[in-house]
Amino acid sequence: MFRTHTCGELRLSDVNKTTTLAGWVQTVRKFGSITFVDLRDRYGITQLLFSESLNEKLEANPLGREYVLQVTGKVNERSNKNTNIPTGEIEILVSDFSILNKSITPPFTIQDDTDGGDDLRMKYRFLDLRRNAVKRNLELRYAVGRSTRNYLHENNFMDIETPFLIKSTPEGARDFVVPSRMNPGQFYALPQSPQTFKQLLMVSGYDRYYQIVKCFRDEDLRADRQPEFTQIDCEMSFVEQEDILNMFESLIKRIFKDVKNIDYTENVERMTWEDAMWQYGNDKPDIRFDMKLCNLKFPGHTFPSKPVISALIDGADFKVFDEAETVIAIAASGCSEYTRKQIDELTEWVKRPQIGMKGLAYIKYNNDGTLKSSIDKFYPEEKLKAIAEAVNAKPGDLIFILAGAEERTRKATSELRLHLGQFLGLRKADEFKLLWVLDFPLFEYAEDDNRWVARHHPFTSPKPSDIEIMINNNPVIDNPAEYLKHPYANIKANAYDMVLNGNEIGGGSIRIFQKELQQKMFAALGMDEAEQQHKFGFLLGAFEYGAPPHGGLAFGFDRLCAILGGSESIRDFIAFPKNNSGRDVMIDAPSTIDDKQFDELQIKLDLKQ
Amino acid sequence: MFRTHTCGELRLSDVNKTTTLAGWVQTVRKFGSITFVDLRDRYGITQLLFSESLNEKLEANPLGREYVLQVTGKVNERSNKNTNIPTGEIEILVSDFSILNKSITPPFTIQDDTDGGDDLRMKYRFLDLRRNAVKRNLELRYAVGRSTRNYLHENNFMDIETPFLIKSTPEGARDFVVPSRMNPGQFYALPQSPQTFKQLLMVSGYDRYYQIVKCFRDEDLRADRQPEFTQIDCEMSFVEQEDILNMFESLIKRIFKDVKNIDYTENVERMTWEDAMWQYGNDKPDIRFDMKLCNLKFPGHTFPSKPVISALIDGADFKVFDEAETVIAIAASGCSEYTRKQIDELTEWVKRPQIGMKGLAYIKYNNDGTLKSSIDKFYPEEKLKAIAEAVNAKPGDLIFILAGAEERTRKATSELRLHLGQFLGLRKADEFKLLWVLDFPLFEYAEDDNRWVARHHPFTSPKPSDIEIMINNNPVIDNPAEYLKHPYANIKANAYDMVLNGNEIGGGSIRIFQKELQQKMFAALGMDEAEQQHKFGFLLGAFEYGAPPHGGLAFGFDRLCAILGGSESIRDFIAFPKNNSGRDVMIDAPSTIDDKQFDELQIKLDLKQ
Repeated sequence: MFRTHTCGELRLSDVNKTTTLAGWVQTVRKFGSITFVDLRDRYGITQLLFSESLNEKLEANPLGREYVLQVTGKVNERSNKNTNIPTGEIEILVSDFSILNKSITPPFTIQDDTDGGDDLRMKYRFLDLRRNAVKRNLELRYAVGRSTRNYLHENNFMDIETPFLIKSTPEGARDFVVPSRMNPGQFYALPQSPQTFKQLLMVSGYDRYYQIVKCFRDEDLRADRQPEFTQIDCEMSFVEQEDILNMFESLIKRIFKDVKNIDYTENVERMTWEDAMWQYGNDKPDIRFDMKLCNLKFPGHTFPSKPVISALIDGADFKVFDEAETVIAIAASGCSEYTRKQIDELTEWVKRPQIGMKGLAYIKYNNDGTLKSSIDKFYPEEKLKAIAEAVNAKPGDLIFILAGAEERTRKATSELRLHLGQFLGLRKADEFKLLWVLDFPLFEYAEDDNRWVARHHPFTSPKPSDIEIMINNNPVIDNPAEYLKHPYANIKANAYDMVLNGNEIGGGSIRIFQKELQQKMFAALGMDEAEQQHKFGFLLGAFEYGAPPHGGLAFGFDRLCAILGGSESIRDFIAFPKNNSGRDVMIDAPSTIDDKQFDELQIKLDLKQ
Repeated sequence: MFRTHTCGELRLSDVNKTTTLAGWVQTVRKFGSITFVDLRDRYGITQLLFSESLNEKLEANPLGREYVLQVTGKVNERSNKNTNIPTGEIEILVSDFSILNKSITPPFTIQDDTDGGDDLRMKYRFLDLRRNAVKRNLELRYAVGRSTRNYLHENNFMDIETPFLIKSTPEGARDFVVPSRMNPGQFYALPQSPQTFKQLLMVSGYDRYYQIVKCFRDEDLRADRQPEFTQIDCEMSFVEQEDILNMFESLIKRIFKDVKNIDYTENVERMTWEDAMWQYGNDKPDIRFDMKLCNLKFPGHTFPSKPVISALIDGADFKVFDEAETVIAIAASGCSEYTRKQIDELTEWVKRPQIGMKGLAYIKYNNDGTLKSSIDKFYPEEKLKAIAEAVNAKPGDLIFILAGAEERTRKATSELRLHLGQFLGLRKADEFKLLWVLDFPLFEYAEDDNRWVARHHPFTSPKPSDIEIMINNNPVIDNPAEYLKHPYANIKANAYDMVLNGNEIGGGSIRIFQKELQQKMFAALGMDEAEQQHKFGFLLGAFEYGAPPHGGLAFGFDRLCAILGGSESIRDFIAFPKNNSGRDVMIDAPSTIDDKQFDELQIKLDLKQ
């Protein structure tokens, strides 16, 4: 060992002990003939005191930032204590030292507030990882993993590894493929998830499976997506949806306790997908604050169970509302005194191309109970008041109204809600609100191919009450214009998403476990029997040998860690992330390969000009 | 939940409880009007009793092997107890049941002694995994992983994930590569190990890292190799070899305790590579038994510190020995009364092509102290006695002597030793003997290229005392015939292998952490500066910024589990293994991919005729 203690270990109670430390030089400060060095390692920082007697050696062996240093000395009580760090009451009176390795000047400072830009820090990731801020993230990630494993172990789950070199069955996302040298002309695929393997394990009787496992998707990378990412992947047999929700909300509560020391004792809220879309405008609502959407006019096609309340705005001859497919209001609490300028800024905000609205109407519900609006030319005060009541506004609130095409308007209002929530300080970083979103539609309509696609994936079971509808109807859509009237449009899935502070952190479903229903599902997605056999013959085969009822879910491990760490960026919680072009700029990958490799793999490039 | 208890849970103390179980039908037995069913799940088997009142329902819903069944009933004390299983004192008086899923007849029996052959069980792996024998293996694997994680956690190691999509730097083994769609013409490689990344983590200050991680090598698969395999991968900073040996022999001892309940209290033996090769003929000796090799004649070139004792056999005018490069003897304890037939069989055994020797001489050291030999025409009794003494034989032993080319003869004698050890019952399945093999040569000579290759890998440090030799000498070999006289031939590595019962279960080294020495190493392996920069520029760069002294090792997780489970085959300890052609015959992978995939990846096939 190059050390007897770490740089985070020594305390007042260790005074007079002889110690050897090893670490990195954080700072060197000279005071007259005395030199102070802050020595850093993974565990902390310890102050070193080099007295005059070492000056000759120090001159022959000058110290620099990030030098690797080994020192021996005695633990001494500091006269000038630093109460900000655990070792701040002591220092080491160095008797001897040795430079284990030198460092050239780092391209950025190794500090919480570094002067390094993103690109530089990615290129020198090995230096960025030295920064406390990044180290804390990786420590949190390790703690989340550890807590997860402990909880699942205590609940009889088994970690079982599934293969990485599997079969390409592109459904939705693109596979990364791997040419097989031993089977020329054939390719493996890297798993997008261990989905079919964990289902096979259920067929095999391993009734509680988990894995913290890398998955791969070759997708164009939007901000905060990675081509390789990590899932907490779980599956259980002999369970219904309720069992899964209980098991895994308890997992997240356990992680809150272990990692953040938060007692999340309240029940986890539950909401149907329809309610989420209706009340919050998206399927992963941030319920740390209320400010629900109010549909003032809606043809009711996507959400058949929701009321149409267009009478509130009808008959006023206001073309913008009359001609809009959807008109949605929200009330910003306590904002009735917003200035013209503030409202103009918000109007510009919703008109940005990312939001894409044409304008923003408002109603000020003044503290004295009067109402003032940008649309009072069309709506008398009593109408405005009815709208205010519909959107649950109180005196002192400011009501915003957006109008336009259904999907865009809903999305825009949802964005505006989050924007206002952020601005009004309602999205508190230290508040955590879990939510289950339930009863998703099983299918989505793919206009290009005039067919159904699986909203979740092809293994998700319909709600038990909808199985008959699925079995007894032909999935073919005869009239594309009226696809919403097809019986499949209303089939609900036995699927669930877990949402934390407006982020989807996990999702899953009860699976199909009957061969016939699985075949019906594949057929509904446009797969003929030959394709079903080629891609999923092994699964259909397995279902013939006594498949148990089962279901599961997967958490996005990177994102869960990021949110627990109070960050929006998963990249900060991955030791060696890739950039938006899927490149690792530190090791410079991907890169060219040798002719010999092409030759052995029996492939060649076919580059487009 | 489909159940209130598992099939392994109920005991006498549960009698009269109402219970619901779910599982698979193992057997159905009818006795008159009563039907007994053994219901199986992951946790065990419970006997069900269907009384006459259920016969009508049973006739309408007949049960078959591997049907998935849910039953409700009362726990009853059995009159006919089965003491072989934990639930053997009770049975369930079934009041109602429901068939959750049916099964067609499995292609083999789901029993410890199945009637299924290897190929069939691989194709229906999901059924093979139901067998107790396979389930026990996966449970052991999980327990080994769990024990490993607990131990490393307690010792401040952090599990940090390293990337799977990295850069191809073929050194030794072939990489699997992954075409990058977003970077046309470029490829990722799958890691052969996280070696360089864990070293970067040391540079980053994460002084105790581990991962249980998949690695990939595209090699022709000998029996018991897999293209994807799992390592327990570890690295530490500020350590010397001694620290690593202590840390990781304690890990293995902990696994013995946690998984096998074995108290491995004795010290782990250590042996130099030279001694292992000299005394056992290979670098992973099985030291559960003695039977050391005795070199009767040796030119002394590969093992410079070993004595040449050819005087024992010189001057007898026995051409076979005189002309052989090497003559090696071993003594089989208590075998002096072997018959002519037994010795002939062993002679045939060493003449098999896999062993490749021309013959087998023997000396019987009779219980009365006389000696009888197949070569007594050439050697008088006193000479034979001298040989017997040299090989540590006692009266009652049988000495075998092999002669031929050095490497082949050494290997053959080592194989003969293991063969005899097996035959004589000296390799006990329930005895575990750990061994560290130390002081490997740093380089091996590559005849084809007349250059050095790294015996371990290019990141392994020479012994501190040999660093000067490496720095101060030119690696170029001027005279290929005399490569053994090159100073590099005798450089020892700071490397270590852990051997368990004759199997290498892990290995590692103290790493090079100085840029100049790393460059010298790359140059010694024939890499010019451009190639060094292209392949490992990131590592050389990182070494400029204060790399600490560090070292580590990796255990072969699959093999470790196999040996602990008493098996020679790692395949039995992998949930979904591949066959010797790298195929997963269950899912039928690898397979062809779509034209669209080729098009997007901008590659095409280039198949040889």
